[in-house]
Amino acid sequence: MIIQLENDLKEQDRQSLINKVKTEGFTITEVNTQVGAYLVCISKNSSDIRKIGSLPGVVDVHIVSDSYKLVSAKWKLTPSSILLDDIQIGGSDFTVMAGPCAIENEAQVDSIAQHLVANGVRIMRGGVFKPRSSPYSFKGLGKEGLVMFYNICKQYDLKIISEVMEADQIEQMYNFVDIFQVGARNSQNFNLLHALGKTDKPVLIKRGTSGTIDELLQSAEYIFSSGNEKLILCERGIRTFENASRNTFDINAIPILKKKSHLPVIADPSHGIGIREHVPAIALAALAAGADGLMYEVHEKPEEALSDGQQTLNFIESTDLLKRIKQLYDLL
Amino acid sequence: MIIQLENDLKEQDRQSLINKVKTEGFTITEVNTQVGAYLVCISKNSSDIRKIGSLPGVVDVHIVSDSYKLVSAKWKLTPSSILLDDIQIGGSDFTVMAGPCAIENEAQVDSIAQHLVANGVRIMRGGVFKPRSSPYSFKGLGKEGLVMFYNICKQYDLKIISEVMEADQIEQMYNFVDIFQVGARNSQNFNLLHALGKTDKPVLIKRGTSGTIDELLQSAEYIFSSGNEKLILCERGIRTFENASRNTFDINAIPILKKKSHLPVIADPSHGIGIREHVPAIALAALAAGADGLMYEVHEKPEEALSDGQQTLNFIESTDLLKRIKQLYDLL
Amino acid sequence: MIIQLENDLKEQDRQSLINKVKTEGFTITEVNTQVGAYLVCISKNSSDIRKIGSLPGVVDVHIVSDSYKLVSAKWKLTPSSILLDDIQIGGSDFTVMAGPCAIENEAQVDSIAQHLVANGVRIMRGGVFKPRSSPYSFKGLGKEGLVMFYNICKQYDLKIISEVMEADQIEQMYNFVDIFQVGARNSQNFNLLHALGKTDKPVLIKRGTSGTIDELLQSAEYIFSSGNEKLILCERGIRTFENASRNTFDINAIPILKKKSHLPVIADPSHGIGIREHVPAIALAALAAGADGLMYEVHEKPEEALSDGQQTLNFIESTDLLKRIKQLYDLL
Amino acid sequence: MIIQLENDLKEQDRQSLINKVKTEGFTITEVNTQVGAYLVCISKNSSDIRKIGSLPGVVDVHIVSDSYKLVSAKWKLTPSSILLDDIQIGGSDFTVMAGPCAIENEAQVDSIAQHLVANGVRIMRGGVFKPRSSPYSFKGLGKEGLVMFYNICKQYDLKIISEVMEADQIEQMYNFVDIFQVGARNSQNFNLLHALGKTDKPVLIKRGTSGTIDELLQSAEYIFSSGNEKLILCERGIRTFENASRNTFDINAIPILKKKSHLPVIADPSHGIGIREHVPAIALAALAAGADGLMYEVHEKPEEALSDGQQTLNFIESTDLLKRIKQLYDLL
Repeated sequence: MIIQLENDLKEQDRQSLINKVKTEGFTITEVNTQVGAYLVCISKNSSDIRKIGSLPGVVDVHIVSDSYKLVSAKWKLTPSSILLDDIQIGGSDFTVMAGPCAIENEAQVDSIAQHLVANGVRIMRGGVFKPRSSPYSFKGLGKEGLVMFYNICKQYDLKIISEVMEADQIEQMYNFVDIFQVGARNSQNFNLLHALGKTDKPVLIKRGTSGTIDELLQSAEYIFSSGNEKLILCERGIRTFENASRNTFDINAIPILKKKSHLPVIADPSHGIGIREHVPAIALAALAAGADGLMYEVHEKPEEALSDGQQTLNFIESTDLLKRIKQLYDLL
Repeated sequence: MIIQLENDLKEQDRQSLINKVKTEGFTITEVNTQVGAYLVCISKNSSDIRKIGSLPGVVDVHIVSDSYKLVSAKWKLTPSSILLDDIQIGGSDFTVMAGPCAIENEAQVDSIAQHLVANGVRIMRGGVFKPRSSPYSFKGLGKEGLVMFYNICKQYDLKIISEVMEADQIEQMYNFVDIFQVGARNSQNFNLLHALGKTDKPVLIKRGTSGTIDELLQSAEYIFSSGNEKLILCERGIRTFENASRNTFDINAIPILKKKSHLPVIADPSHGIGIREHVPAIALAALAAGADGLMYEVHEKPEEALSDGQQTLNFIESTDLLKRIKQLYDLL
Repeated sequence: MIIQLENDLKEQDRQSLINKVKTEGFTITEVNTQVGAYLVCISKNSSDIRKIGSLPGVVDVHIVSDSYKLVSAKWKLTPSSILLDDIQIGGSDFTVMAGPCAIENEAQVDSIAQHLVANGVRIMRGGVFKPRSSPYSFKGLGKEGLVMFYNICKQYDLKIISEVMEADQIEQMYNFVDIFQVGARNSQNFNLLHALGKTDKPVLIKRGTSGTIDELLQSAEYIFSSGNEKLILCERGIRTFENASRNTFDINAIPILKKKSHLPVIADPSHGIGIREHVPAIALAALAAGADGLMYEVHEKPEEALSDGQQTLNFIESTDLLKRIKQLYDLL
Repeated sequence: MIIQLENDLKEQDRQSLINKVKTEGFTITEVNTQVGAYLVCISKNSSDIRKIGSLPGVVDVHIVSDSYKLVSAKWKLTPSSILLDDIQIGGSDFTVMAGPCAIENEAQVDSIAQHLVANGVRIMRGGVFKPRSSPYSFKGLGKEGLVMFYNICKQYDLKIISEVMEADQIEQMYNFVDIFQVGARNSQNFNLLHALGKTDKPVLIKRGTSGTIDELLQSAEYIFSSGNEKLILCERGIRTFENASRNTFDINAIPILKKKSHLPVIADPSHGIGIREHVPAIALAALAAGADGLMYEVHEKPEEALSDGQQTLNFIESTDLLKRIKQLYDLL
């Protein structure tokens, strides 16, 4: 059960309300986000929500039977959206984020930033902390690389999304990113998710390679219930028996997530198929299936990229994709 | 190695050619289809294809390193298409096949046939031999049902696609279907595939629930190499750990199959996601990803359908989907 | 609901009983096997089984809520076993079947037969109809090879298990095999399963590469409900994301199948792991987990085998495995 | 390439050696563990290892082509083992760790500790930081619970293994655990793995639910290459399409890991199958397949456990399992 509270509720009235609900046998999690205040109430018993709804300080009460609560579309029927200045993510807009897998050097960032600006993309992606299966692989330029990335993006008025790998990095990165990205391998790193609930910046959460749709929503619930409701879900392919592609992009997840949750859903076709020439097909498919946006990898010379070159578009391919995306978006 | 032969090659010259190639160490499969004559030559050694290319009776020679040969796009660079009177499957057209999961009775067939005709669909699907996990489930109306189905479709000038479950049924069904369908569970029923190579009617082959893309192409190769090259591939979802949908529709398979093979690729969004309200999203995604057509389930009253009701569109949903498909196809 | 009938029930009493049950709203499948007579009664309503139990001709009545009925352990609490002369499969015995993947020639069969006899193995496996992903691979010696195989085995008093790929082959093979094997790819070839229900010889059914435990039991139900209850289940590995082994041997399936069904459960470690040196580890694990027997591949010279050489034991490895199996069986 | 260094090599000679190897085009990671000193040298070029082997300060040089290096059995041919006082993990011993999923209270810990001591188990497991899919589930007693757990175990001379979820917890837990456990969801939490490389206590790493065998070994490589070679691998089941069990215990992984790596391999049958009555079957199977030990869940009253009760043995079942494990171990 979710109880939406009046935002200006006095502490005394709040405690009195909480006490009343507790006597009904509920365990209560108090949630205060950028936007609202909620009580998430868990109990094995059912309760008369009308009685609770009429208590002072209560805006509304909702029964949510899902394992996730605050991110469920069962209580919040209209889609959520996030504003980065005048850029809207979710709602009726379609948002593109693009950039290299990893930030490599100034020249690389600058050329890609120019490409994005020239094509109307407003958010640039780029990793400086790279999770790599092998300890001997390139692990990114770290904080220093992020500052460089930030400085260039500022010149071009580009917003930044970049991956955070552990709670300690949040503070380091805070002034230099606009969206924190949680990678697939950290999709159930609950300590990291909890810590991200304490920031006020948006968080994009990638689905784990073997994470179910419900688990992704529960991971989002971790962040929301810790205080941050600026959330974006990202489908990026799951691990299956099929080896013809790097991952199996779960196109089904797009309409299912949109139905189950009010959060915006972004597609990552680069990881989703992992084959450069087929990335545009998956990007268009995701848009047709109802995604709220796209995050893909682009590089001036993909064949020279330090990582993920085989799934990274060059500028010509990227420009062409953006044109087709625009046409399709206008139609839909 | 594939050797394309002149169609009017005399038997004597053919044998002489075969003997020459055999002396190079190849094992030869002779293939004669509705369209052409080929020798598929397998060997662990490489050979000088120029030498073979200049032999009398040889149109062209191609090295194909894939495990499948005749269905590969490595030798046949232009997409194949199939003609059913004036209906083209593959090539630049987008073909819709729709109808109930199972043929139930005349009234059902008649109402769906009218719906299809009214919306410009030219091919009706409907099963009379139904593979069911449980021996106690409804298994279809059989031959008798097929004849009824055929008689109604003839009135409406609709073509028929229907599933064949074993070699013995081919002859029974031959006069009453326009396309044989091989179901997911029979995707590697090699005796059935071989037998279908002996007919001259088109065959649509569904991917197995755990079949790889390569295995689907090898199954198609079975039919082609037995003499029938009127083939259609069908992606219908694979089995993964995700249970939020009945299957995981492998959208990646669409561009990958189109790249690897010259055969047309059809999407089955009904089985692909298994949730009625989300079927249109997957249908549109498949088109955007490059599919050559669509096969979906439709019924006047899905909730009363004898099987698959939960993934079957009603007439309003179907009409709406077809309108959106047309718009999207016109754009692309 | 399963109604066990008296074996010598008169046709008239049988019909009278059936009619009574039908009036309760049940759909009835009449099953007559080598051993018993049953009515499988399906209905959405529940019924008072005491009332039915007291009807003349009824031995016992059981409610079975599983999707499979006759193969369920819910009605037949003691394990089933099969007798091939004095060889028992299931019950308290542990049965080994071994032999080559494919029957190749007389010398091969003879050497392996000698090896088996010398080590106390009584049942020899060997394929003459080989399902192969590619149409260009070796597909077995066919009927002729089977007769040769049979003649040699007769000399050594070995029983034969061999794979049947389609209904038409049952009659061809009938006089030359002791156990029909259904391969993984045909695990849901329902026409074949139904036809095997009409024979009186035992059938070993392999689990499909993506078949669930419940689907395997339903496949067995197909055969049983068609009249043949001499059934053996076989776990042989499933398809997962892991590529370090050919398949993932599902050791969990052993105790789960033994709990859910009364049928004997055999393990195939050769396909289960697909790596020769590790086959014995999986064989021993299967025995420790409660399997009723083992089927593995052995060849005098695995490196020269026409198929599956990489997972086939040589005679020294096979002898050693059998010794360890015996020790472990004696302990358990 | 791995270069084993003399332990007492002077810094100057070490630098001189490193410089020489660098000039050959290698990227070098210096590794100093509790036991030895190594240089892990990565390069796309091959090198003459004899030349390097004869340099001063070099004990031995090994080419390791795997993606993991230091944990590979290609250079360290004898199995590694770890000593906790007189308890050996790995080598010829079979080590049992058991205990509750979560530490709940003193009485619970005390009763289980007594049960373990009475049955000869020397290492007790129990979680105080619990990763849970839902933010509203019980998340463990935390540090306070760990101290209580430690105090009781000290009385019984039991060693402790407990899960660590983030780098910050390492210091908190250090004085109260004997083995750090990395859970399945953190199997690729590279920052945590790196931090665990800086401790001198043993680390047990669970395979991720969708982690490949190679990824598990690379995760172990992270810890080893950061300085800690007291490592234990743990197979605990992977995520597949099969839902009859909670996970699919990958029995194949046991012999494959033992072959690929010199590290000890422990089986977790509780999570591996997730069904209480079948845990012993999987435990015995793991031992038969070559595992070096076992970690399972036990509780005085599983039905009252705060988590994982459905896969937790009671004392009678646990005692019986340990007896059977002992018999089987003595035989093997």
